[in-house]
Amino acid sequence: MIPIGERINGMFRDVKQAIAEKEKKVIQELALRQTEAGAKYLDVNVGTAARDQLGTMKWLVETIQEVCDTPLALDSQKLDVIKAGLEVAKQPVLINSCRADAETLDTYFGICKEHNSSLICLTMTKEGVSQDVPKRLEDAMRVIEKATEHEIPMERVFIDPIILPINVDQRQPKMICEVISQVKLMTDPPPHITCGLSNISQGTRNRHLINRTMLVMMVAAGMDSAICDVLDKDLMDAWITTELLMNRIIYSHDYIKAALTSLRAR
Amino acid sequence: MIPIGERINGMFRDVKQAIAEKEKKVIQELALRQTEAGAKYLDVNVGTAARDQLGTMKWLVETIQEVCDTPLALDSQKLDVIKAGLEVAKQPVLINSCRADAETLDTYFGICKEHNSSLICLTMTKEGVSQDVPKRLEDAMRVIEKATEHEIPMERVFIDPIILPINVDQRQPKMICEVISQVKLMTDPPPHITCGLSNISQGTRNRHLINRTMLVMMVAAGMDSAICDVLDKDLMDAWITTELLMNRIIYSHDYIKAALTSLRAR
Repeated sequence: MIPIGERINGMFRDVKQAIAEKEKKVIQELALRQTEAGAKYLDVNVGTAARDQLGTMKWLVETIQEVCDTPLALDSQKLDVIKAGLEVAKQPVLINSCRADAETLDTYFGICKEHNSSLICLTMTKEGVSQDVPKRLEDAMRVIEKATEHEIPMERVFIDPIILPINVDQRQPKMICEVISQVKLMTDPPPHITCGLSNISQGTRNRHLINRTMLVMMVAAGMDSAICDVLDKDLMDAWITTELLMNRIIYSHDYIKAALTSLRAR
Repeated sequence: MIPIGERINGMFRDVKQAIAEKEKKVIQELALRQTEAGAKYLDVNVGTAARDQLGTMKWLVETIQEVCDTPLALDSQKLDVIKAGLEVAKQPVLINSCRADAETLDTYFGICKEHNSSLICLTMTKEGVSQDVPKRLEDAMRVIEKATEHEIPMERVFIDPIILPINVDQRQPKMICEVISQVKLMTDPPPHITCGLSNISQGTRNRHLINRTMLVMMVAAGMDSAICDVLDKDLMDAWITTELLMNRIIYSHDYIKAALTSLRAR
């Protein structure tokens, strides 16, 4: 399981303020707390408020690297912001994310090759988010083909089937689970599957409950990663328990503690 | 969704004592609380301690019927205990349960026909519990065939794929989810699928968490009923949220309250 900690994102008020005031401690504490909670990657997103996006990305990466060596997921829709992070990153990163258009994939997989990065590819093109199963599978297949063409092994490819809020389209979760189980059969070894989990509960009450339930369903379908709130202990416990029930980790009375210890090992 | 309240069972200490002392109030409170919590059926099991099993079953059924008209699931491996309950039940019951041997199914579906009962059929025969997918599907198909032969409509047939404790065989949950999704495709309309949920966590710590996570996985796979602790609010919330995500109930901010109101309606 590959949890990606979502908290170092300029959309959160505390991070936004820390960026504005160059307050390293807030960022560093979030880095350490998420690592301790089991994050295999720390997502780094400058948000929309920062004027100097490139400088802010560099500052965030350097600030985090001062206190821990947890791998980073550089999160931006802008390629130059990703590149700014890559310049200062001390070890291979996960790029989050790119669309599944052929030319975009060529550009991003080229960068992955050069920097030894991994890449999250969304099941969407410039025409928009793919909203049904066949269109998402078509996008996923294009990602796999392009990765193969650029000689990027599947363990460095993450496919994100794109979660829409449950109050926007209730048919989506079932379709997404279907997509996950089918993508896992497309190639062997399969690519990773990840998602921006919190999207499912945008604008709802019961956000934690909805996120957690969706995660269990997706993990049972074969998803092995998620960008999520790793500080939500109930969420992590539910994830680990799903791994147990799917026979991906071994039962012991202390299986949760054992799984967390294993996640914390670098 | 068809939650079956598990609490009126002589294996629980309070119920065992209430049976021994003919203390109606304990039983009646459990009946009312489980009904309020959303149980569509109340399981009634005399346990193993009561000497007069037939008399105890009758006493339990009559005691419950004094305070509510929630349908009952008469739970015994002994046919004469079931029959004792049927004698005094004021409305159609769910019989819990019988094995999937052909001759056993003939006997039980015959009783169902006579008493307008529903029936839980286990995927096991006199040779033991079916532990792989094909064997369980074979049992399920025999149940469907026998129900059809006896003219019992599928809405009165519940198939229980039999959950084994996670610390006994970790391969089971994945197989059970596979069985559920396949049984749902066997006939249209399909039979109900139910289970004795708490079995999954026998002998483990984190019982509530394991039960809840297993329930979400099974409901996502297509299970629509479970014999479980309906008084466990986290469990019921997770179940309702899975129904929401699977697009079986409509989203509203108060979808949990709406679902519970609907469950309480007779």
